[in-house]
Amino acid sequence: MADNKKKVEKITSRDVDFAQWYTDIVKNADLVDYSGVKGCMIIRPYGWAIWENIQAILNKMFKETGHCNLSMPMFIPESLLQREKDHVEGFAPEVAWVTHGGEEKLAERLCVRPTSETLFCEHYAQIIKSYRDLPKLYNQWCSVVRWEKTTRPFLRSREFHWQEGHTMHATAQDAVDETLRMLNVYADFCENYLAIPVVKGRKTDKEKFAGAEDTYTIEALMHDGRALQSGTSHYFGDGFAKAFDIQYLDKDNTLKYCHQTSWGMSTRIIGGIIMTHGDDNGLVLPPAVAPTQIVVVPVQQHKEGVLEAATEVFNSLKDSFRVEMDDRDQSPGWKFAEHEMRGVPVRLELGPRDIEAGVCVLARRDNGEKITANLSELSEILPKLLDDITKSMLESAKARRNSMTYTAESLDELKEIAATKPGFIKTKWCGDLECEMALKEQADVTSRCMPFNEDEVGGELHTDVCVCCGKKAEKTILWGKAY
Amino acid sequence: MADNKKKVEKITSRDVDFAQWYTDIVKNADLVDYSGVKGCMIIRPYGWAIWENIQAILNKMFKETGHCNLSMPMFIPESLLQREKDHVEGFAPEVAWVTHGGEEKLAERLCVRPTSETLFCEHYAQIIKSYRDLPKLYNQWCSVVRWEKTTRPFLRSREFHWQEGHTMHATAQDAVDETLRMLNVYADFCENYLAIPVVKGRKTDKEKFAGAEDTYTIEALMHDGRALQSGTSHYFGDGFAKAFDIQYLDKDNTLKYCHQTSWGMSTRIIGGIIMTHGDDNGLVLPPAVAPTQIVVVPVQQHKEGVLEAATEVFNSLKDSFRVEMDDRDQSPGWKFAEHEMRGVPVRLELGPRDIEAGVCVLARRDNGEKITANLSELSEILPKLLDDITKSMLESAKARRNSMTYTAESLDELKEIAATKPGFIKTKWCGDLECEMALKEQADVTSRCMPFNEDEVGGELHTDVCVCCGKKAEKTILWGKAY
Repeated sequence: MADNKKKVEKITSRDVDFAQWYTDIVKNADLVDYSGVKGCMIIRPYGWAIWENIQAILNKMFKETGHCNLSMPMFIPESLLQREKDHVEGFAPEVAWVTHGGEEKLAERLCVRPTSETLFCEHYAQIIKSYRDLPKLYNQWCSVVRWEKTTRPFLRSREFHWQEGHTMHATAQDAVDETLRMLNVYADFCENYLAIPVVKGRKTDKEKFAGAEDTYTIEALMHDGRALQSGTSHYFGDGFAKAFDIQYLDKDNTLKYCHQTSWGMSTRIIGGIIMTHGDDNGLVLPPAVAPTQIVVVPVQQHKEGVLEAATEVFNSLKDSFRVEMDDRDQSPGWKFAEHEMRGVPVRLELGPRDIEAGVCVLARRDNGEKITANLSELSEILPKLLDDITKSMLESAKARRNSMTYTAESLDELKEIAATKPGFIKTKWCGDLECEMALKEQADVTSRCMPFNEDEVGGELHTDVCVCCGKKAEKTILWGKAY
Repeated sequence: MADNKKKVEKITSRDVDFAQWYTDIVKNADLVDYSGVKGCMIIRPYGWAIWENIQAILNKMFKETGHCNLSMPMFIPESLLQREKDHVEGFAPEVAWVTHGGEEKLAERLCVRPTSETLFCEHYAQIIKSYRDLPKLYNQWCSVVRWEKTTRPFLRSREFHWQEGHTMHATAQDAVDETLRMLNVYADFCENYLAIPVVKGRKTDKEKFAGAEDTYTIEALMHDGRALQSGTSHYFGDGFAKAFDIQYLDKDNTLKYCHQTSWGMSTRIIGGIIMTHGDDNGLVLPPAVAPTQIVVVPVQQHKEGVLEAATEVFNSLKDSFRVEMDDRDQSPGWKFAEHEMRGVPVRLELGPRDIEAGVCVLARRDNGEKITANLSELSEILPKLLDDITKSMLESAKARRNSMTYTAESLDELKEIAATKPGFIKTKWCGDLECEMALKEQADVTSRCMPFNEDEVGGELHTDVCVCCGKKAEKTILWGKAY
């Protein structure tokens, strides 16, 4: 208890040191703990419950779009990883290698999957014969390993959990449609469940996935103005299909190569939730994924009838909400601080005078507002309140994102903004790698995406030349500093 | 289609070659495929859906007994694995070693977890301070790796999926209670959901888990008379707690070591489902975990009104059952064979004459029985039918198990039975390792367990001496050949 009491004091202020604030939150809200292996985190029950809620929602969305789950092995033989040239170049430098099984040295090294395109391709080559077998719409939930040098909980870890969808289609158009469909699923999920506004767009060639023809992304802006790539969807064309000989017999009786996609969202998004919504009192969780949506806190619980009334309220809610009853022998203030730290969306306070009046107090975590509600109306009020909270969290995150999105029409302007104003910088771009590299060098920004809808974020650009080289430019692009 | 048509022909008869029959089923019912790494299997969507159903039921049971999920890293540093002497001796010979991260050789080898006691202990040492922190009741779903020499899908694979519960308690009695509580959860799950009868009992010292004080097991008998260890629950005492210095401050203000358990059930149980219930037409799935519980097959589906009526039936069932509508352009016979292969518990046939009479035919996969049912009564009939199927599958498996359980009162008798009659052999045993080794040597049987209730399985023993050495024996034990 003495240990817990200091929780809030232990959190560094968000505006003083954002990185330390983040670390304080993941630790003090009991989301993760460190293990003995650098970059491999223990996701504690409270953190894991958030991930399980994310899984449940995404699984439902994947099912509604026709996908099914399966499980691939965690090991990839070195020769299999090497089958597609661009892919191995992208991933080989950062994989963990298994060289021994028990006492024996293996004949061939195995890597722990960094991603599973090669495994899916090998399997698809076995099971796809005819146009009747297409499309194949598979997904798996698993952990993957990438041997990163710098690591941070959720944002960049050597082992991380994710889902990876891998699909095969008869035509290029079908595959492109799938790539965009799943990007839209991710955007819908982020905005309407996590209250994280995202920009949908295409990655530059430099930033696309190793082996992909096109990578689409959703980019979010964190509270400190740095960008977080929050989900990606890749269109592969038939490149892997050719490398792995995945052909189907079409209706016209000719053999054709399949067209492929993959798409993934990871535990990194939990970092996104923290950095979009959290404040100096701790986590602020969107109701859709909060392990506890409503906590019932009896006030003056030793007085006659209080605990009984609180229990009655708890029982009336427990089939409809993830609700918790906190009747521990601590002061209400201590409990309030703990539930604020853990980001519980709604606190329901109930004291002797409330009971007498047939009401309770509902305190919102997101904006601190308190309302008095009739106990008899809770089943109507609460669903609406949780919905309002999500919408208002999204609106406030969107307003902040917009206020931190700038336009630049010259290199000097871009450098000035990059040096002084954290956020997205929207410019015209000629499309050349050289200009992209120059901006990294001179302004320390990387390309985030070329937005599908350039009017959606940032003001209008009154120029048609590249912000860097001044040549004629057709593309509109967002730059930023990223996690 | 030509490929699928041969499904049933491709299955070896169960009585001719049980091992080949098993392999044929896992492949032809689309449960698994082989990957490029020996012993690492691809669990295909149909197989994985069974596992997801198993997970959902067990998760509910674990939650009801107060447990919560979390996620530990997959890597264990060599020094951490070595912390508990018996444990490392048991596991080090069969772990996969990661030696390189990217291009760099690691300072210390990491093994891919074969089980996670050491990881949990390291974490518990950090988070347990006081008696208020106990018990800790954690579980995780993950895959683990053991570098087995001989491998078979589900039964023995190098990577396999499981859940591992790891709990910490204030007293030895609390830990023993937990060990038995979870063994009972497993037994309840196997019998009432999977229709697999099990014998609950204690393992001999030779067969117990590396580092455990006691290992409890549930043992099932497969169709060929070989035993399958189907779930285990371990009591560790305070051995690991001492090795990892896991102490708590008790109410009396003194430091005490925690008492520990772990318990696991794995994808191996899917092998148990196959080998308990399957037949020469394929899989027979218990309704509780069948991906499809009821398949609606329209007969003469091109006739007017048939598809519409079938769709109406499908729609009326789909919120209450996992139901599938098979309106593919194939003959009913072809469809029947496919759904039999995949073990769908109930086939609902609906043809023009049925529709006219307001009825349908319900065909049971487990015993082939067909009944005619009023369409208007399906919502009452089907839940009862599924329940009857589970009960009757359990009864028939239990009858077979009992008919294959023998008693032996002398070594000659035991050897004779072991050589000619597959099944459990119940005997008295003095408890000496030497006798256990001798029976392995002379009769090729291993100890399965010392049953909690010796009257539950096998006949009465009219002797009180060890079946091997003839010395006074207090223990009753089951022997068998095991997977």
